[in-house]
Amino acid sequence: MTLTVLHPRWLIPVEPQGLVLQQHALVIDAERIAALLPSEQARERYPQAHHIELADHALLPGLVNLHAHSAMSLLRGLADDLALMDWLNNHIWPAEGKHVSDAFVYDGTLHAMAEMLRGGTTTVNDMYFHHEAVARAAITAGMRTVVGCSILEFPTGYGQNADDYISKAIAAREAFRGEPLVGFSLAPHAPYTVSDETFSKVVTLAEQLEMGIHCHIHETEDEIAGSITQYGVRPLERLRALGVLGPGLVAAHVVHANDAEIELLARHGVHVAHNPASNLKLASGFARIHALQAAGVNVGLGTDGAASNNKLDMLGDLRLAALIAKAQSANPTALHAAAALEMATLAGARALGMAEQIGSLVAGKQADIIAINLADIGSQPLYDPISQIVYAAGREQVSHVWVAGRALLQEGELSTLNPGQLLARAHYWQARISA
Amino acid sequence: MTLTVLHPRWLIPVEPQGLVLQQHALVIDAERIAALLPSEQARERYPQAHHIELADHALLPGLVNLHAHSAMSLLRGLADDLALMDWLNNHIWPAEGKHVSDAFVYDGTLHAMAEMLRGGTTTVNDMYFHHEAVARAAITAGMRTVVGCSILEFPTGYGQNADDYISKAIAAREAFRGEPLVGFSLAPHAPYTVSDETFSKVVTLAEQLEMGIHCHIHETEDEIAGSITQYGVRPLERLRALGVLGPGLVAAHVVHANDAEIELLARHGVHVAHNPASNLKLASGFARIHALQAAGVNVGLGTDGAASNNKLDMLGDLRLAALIAKAQSANPTALHAAAALEMATLAGARALGMAEQIGSLVAGKQADIIAINLADIGSQPLYDPISQIVYAAGREQVSHVWVAGRALLQEGELSTLNPGQLLARAHYWQARISA
Repeated sequence: MTLTVLHPRWLIPVEPQGLVLQQHALVIDAERIAALLPSEQARERYPQAHHIELADHALLPGLVNLHAHSAMSLLRGLADDLALMDWLNNHIWPAEGKHVSDAFVYDGTLHAMAEMLRGGTTTVNDMYFHHEAVARAAITAGMRTVVGCSILEFPTGYGQNADDYISKAIAAREAFRGEPLVGFSLAPHAPYTVSDETFSKVVTLAEQLEMGIHCHIHETEDEIAGSITQYGVRPLERLRALGVLGPGLVAAHVVHANDAEIELLARHGVHVAHNPASNLKLASGFARIHALQAAGVNVGLGTDGAASNNKLDMLGDLRLAALIAKAQSANPTALHAAAALEMATLAGARALGMAEQIGSLVAGKQADIIAINLADIGSQPLYDPISQIVYAAGREQVSHVWVAGRALLQEGELSTLNPGQLLARAHYWQARISA
Repeated sequence: MTLTVLHPRWLIPVEPQGLVLQQHALVIDAERIAALLPSEQARERYPQAHHIELADHALLPGLVNLHAHSAMSLLRGLADDLALMDWLNNHIWPAEGKHVSDAFVYDGTLHAMAEMLRGGTTTVNDMYFHHEAVARAAITAGMRTVVGCSILEFPTGYGQNADDYISKAIAAREAFRGEPLVGFSLAPHAPYTVSDETFSKVVTLAEQLEMGIHCHIHETEDEIAGSITQYGVRPLERLRALGVLGPGLVAAHVVHANDAEIELLARHGVHVAHNPASNLKLASGFARIHALQAAGVNVGLGTDGAASNNKLDMLGDLRLAALIAKAQSANPTALHAAAALEMATLAGARALGMAEQIGSLVAGKQADIIAINLADIGSQPLYDPISQIVYAAGREQVSHVWVAGRALLQEGELSTLNPGQLLARAHYWQARISA
């Protein structure tokens, strides 16, 4: 087996936070990171290895997209500038009802994965329907994926009722058992679409099968008001009583949380998936990221779907998160550059229970790695590479991507996916959806 | 004289707002837009013209950066995650004091112009020192520029006191009289750095010389509190009493404005330069853009300097502005895509008193035009080109730029500037500043 040795200008392991190594190399042995060591030593020790010079590049862990509906890339820009419930009820859900199928999800997920890989995202925590299509797309793309299996009370083109969605989730998980890049989670859609009984079933199943739970929580004030009307309590309190809160839960959004709720999340070890672009675009509000972090809540970053973002650009949303955290907390030191980079990598890995495998460049972890070229005018002069990545770089500067040691992007070219084919499928779906 | 005829897939004139023409061409005659007409007619009528096919592109007016300190590109990332006054007093002003010179400003401004042109910005409303260096850079780059001549009470490496700054402004304006792309404005730095007497002089001079005024106003709550302590009133009330408010004024930032102040700005026809990235990064706050626009205030978009942004990416900040306007106003229809595009183009032109010359694609105006390639995976499928430009495109998709009919960017290549030379100068300054 040939080793690959990467010689970047800057090596940013993310763990420990803020560290920048120079004149250091990273050794990839099959799917793992074998070592980080001085570049010169690496050249002496591994003369037969495949050495890759990345003279203008920063090397860092792949980005972890902690909340996405990948297949919705096919609905990008279909309906903008609308409130969440209008957008869902009158645009997105009707379009989904009419068009979402195994083929739609496979094509849309692959399309999204091409966009994500090119922008440096190596892991996606997805939530959608037609789980086998999502898993097949992940295997085709070679992208690390947690397939979140949606569970609702009402019928869609994919399921009839909660039990039906649950059995489809279990079946999909069984069908892909042993796939190293593909995991499954239970994804009760949201407190306003899932009953107490179903939440309880999900909790039991998640425990029995050691599956994570992925749920939209406290996204809008309307959701909270509705819960008070229907259940007499705010959603987080209802979920607490049902036993949903715990370290296996990824709570997407959490835009609205009072101090007591932040404390509750911290106490139960709940992870938050922060989706700044979607929260702003739908006018859901400004999540209290600085307060969540200060209370010890682990906060990762997500793009949400391309229908409410409208891009799947983790590097862009990382900048956005770092910027708004400061204004929201009236504290310009909030979510500083190194903390923002951790949010988009290691924090996401932690939330998925995968911090031992991915999220930082540490010997023994999976080789999920990206290189960002900082030679260009927009990234120069350069006083601090982490600042440059977070505040100045664009996703188009991501030059190389490895997932489990496999090169998926090299000098900007995808190796597993064909953009021409993906575009042909996108145009096919656009014509159908526009009709 | 050969005519140039552009045949884009989508032609977005911005005026009227929201219009998208297909199968239409735009004719450039020397420095002006000669006509917009159906593509087929253009081919018949101008068989000898230079026809450029832009089959995957949207054509739109060049972006107008309404507030920048271009030369600060050389300080990009020097000091991050700090509050405004700490950042200014302990980092930026000392570095400027030590290094800012005619050569620094020329090199830094050219560097910034390369970045701006590649990202589709054709006009910059600058504010800095060493005005002749800024003007020379503008002429070298071929970029439309309003040189804002800073005026302060205290000495810097460029001037001794307010009168000295004013005479330098007048001299620079005289030296470049008749340059078609270069204008000058008077730029009293801010209410907390400029005395009543100087503001009054500026108002008189601006009237006599028909110059615009460009000033930081209501950027932070500290500024407002300081004014109340020193002058007994908030800065906008002080400026009103001094006669500064009027349609010749571009007020940069205006993060903090109560309803009465918004009404005051509207009544006096003051233009606001909104700088979302800088306002967030320095935790200055969320400007009330939706309320300003609802009151009839003309709001353009600016990047501010690269030291507080840290990029000069108008397309990115246009997206940012559109996103935060919604959450700030709790209204998802606020600053919809077409309105955001107008903010970054025609509104900026209006603020500079140049709406008859630039800001939209209308026959007779200057040919300041950009093309954006929307063929790529991240821009597809495409249901609405304006949505795609505002919410999904990145500046790397800007393929062509014309200023006054001159092609400055073609297929991503700059024609007037040499990136290699610019980078060599950037590295020279980086070494000096780091030392």
